[in-house]
Amino acid sequence: MSTLQSRTSLMDQQLHTFITRFLPDLTEEEYAVFSSFFKPWKAKKKSILISPGEVASYMYFIQSGCMRAFYIQDNGNEATRYINFEGNFATSLSSFITARPATDFLDCVEDCQGLRITKEDFFGLVDTYPRFEKIYRRAIEMGMVHNIWRIETLINMDAKTRYETLLKTNPVLIQRLSNRIVASYLGITQESLSRLKANISL
Amino acid sequence: MSTLQSRTSLMDQQLHTFITRFLPDLTEEEYAVFSSFFKPWKAKKKSILISPGEVASYMYFIQSGCMRAFYIQDNGNEATRYINFEGNFATSLSSFITARPATDFLDCVEDCQGLRITKEDFFGLVDTYPRFEKIYRRAIEMGMVHNIWRIETLINMDAKTRYETLLKTNPVLIQRLSNRIVASYLGITQESLSRLKANISL
Repeated sequence: MSTLQSRTSLMDQQLHTFITRFLPDLTEEEYAVFSSFFKPWKAKKKSILISPGEVASYMYFIQSGCMRAFYIQDNGNEATRYINFEGNFATSLSSFITARPATDFLDCVEDCQGLRITKEDFFGLVDTYPRFEKIYRRAIEMGMVHNIWRIETLINMDAKTRYETLLKTNPVLIQRLSNRIVASYLGITQESLSRLKANISL
Repeated sequence: MSTLQSRTSLMDQQLHTFITRFLPDLTEEEYAVFSSFFKPWKAKKKSILISPGEVASYMYFIQSGCMRAFYIQDNGNEATRYINFEGNFATSLSSFITARPATDFLDCVEDCQGLRITKEDFFGLVDTYPRFEKIYRRAIEMGMVHNIWRIETLINMDAKTRYETLLKTNPVLIQRLSNRIVASYLGITQESLSRLKANISL
């Protein structure tokens, strides 16, 4: 098998891997039905997929690349809410769930490709297949646990502890992304991030 | 009907109201099954129901009173993650979902009474009744939307905007609770909160 074929096969596997994490006894027939609603999609680095005021109409599954949800503050600074890499879903979730206008941006931090499903197809699957609803329920439970943790890091940790915790739990985020984006995720200036990096590596 | 009876009847109604918000076509038979697993419970103001290191074993439905989840920082200050009043559920949710030890405290800010269900009964209902799973899925979706909003207030608003937003969206929280707790929810000092209150009312 060529390297290109191996890579394609690995990418095809990712959605299956994601789903079986939440539904280990997924059947081939179920996967065929569920995955048939996901269509290929790609976008260049810096593409903005959702902007404040728009209603999220797609759920994106990332096969390669990196996406993030962020806000632009009155002073022009960015505040990053989350960053997701290949193998994970991304959208402006509140808007996707409620059909209300988004308040955040969703963009591609790197060139991205993957699969996407429309809101209508997604909630059609949720309403039609209790087993798909179970996948969604378990995935959103894990999203909830993650968001509770994110709130804990914001309200219960100083910048240094927040950085050290990120370094321990998600080092790829720090290694792979620019200081500008990592700082906006940690809620600190780039200068503070540089100082933290210098001190930690001493 | 006496006032006491009216109040009791109103409290009995609360769980039904909560559930039908997420499953409007709930049948009487379903409600009888689901509610039979909820048992009466009460605790005095300042009771701590879950502490860091413990695994959450109950989901609490508040019929009267106020509960909150909070952390104690290294300097002894409290950081409040959420505050819920009557008509809502409360627990240390990450621990309840994952069965891992809690990192937060759950306490009663006021004398509380209500209903509670064990983790085993709760997830037994989720696994046995797809319609109960639907209620849970929809409730957790709304919890997710709330937590995304909470993160937005923390990373995208200064203290003044955060206070004004709380005053607009949940004024009862400010009116009913002590400055100590409101300040710990907003992530500011009590002095800053007093200044904000004084300036806004001008």
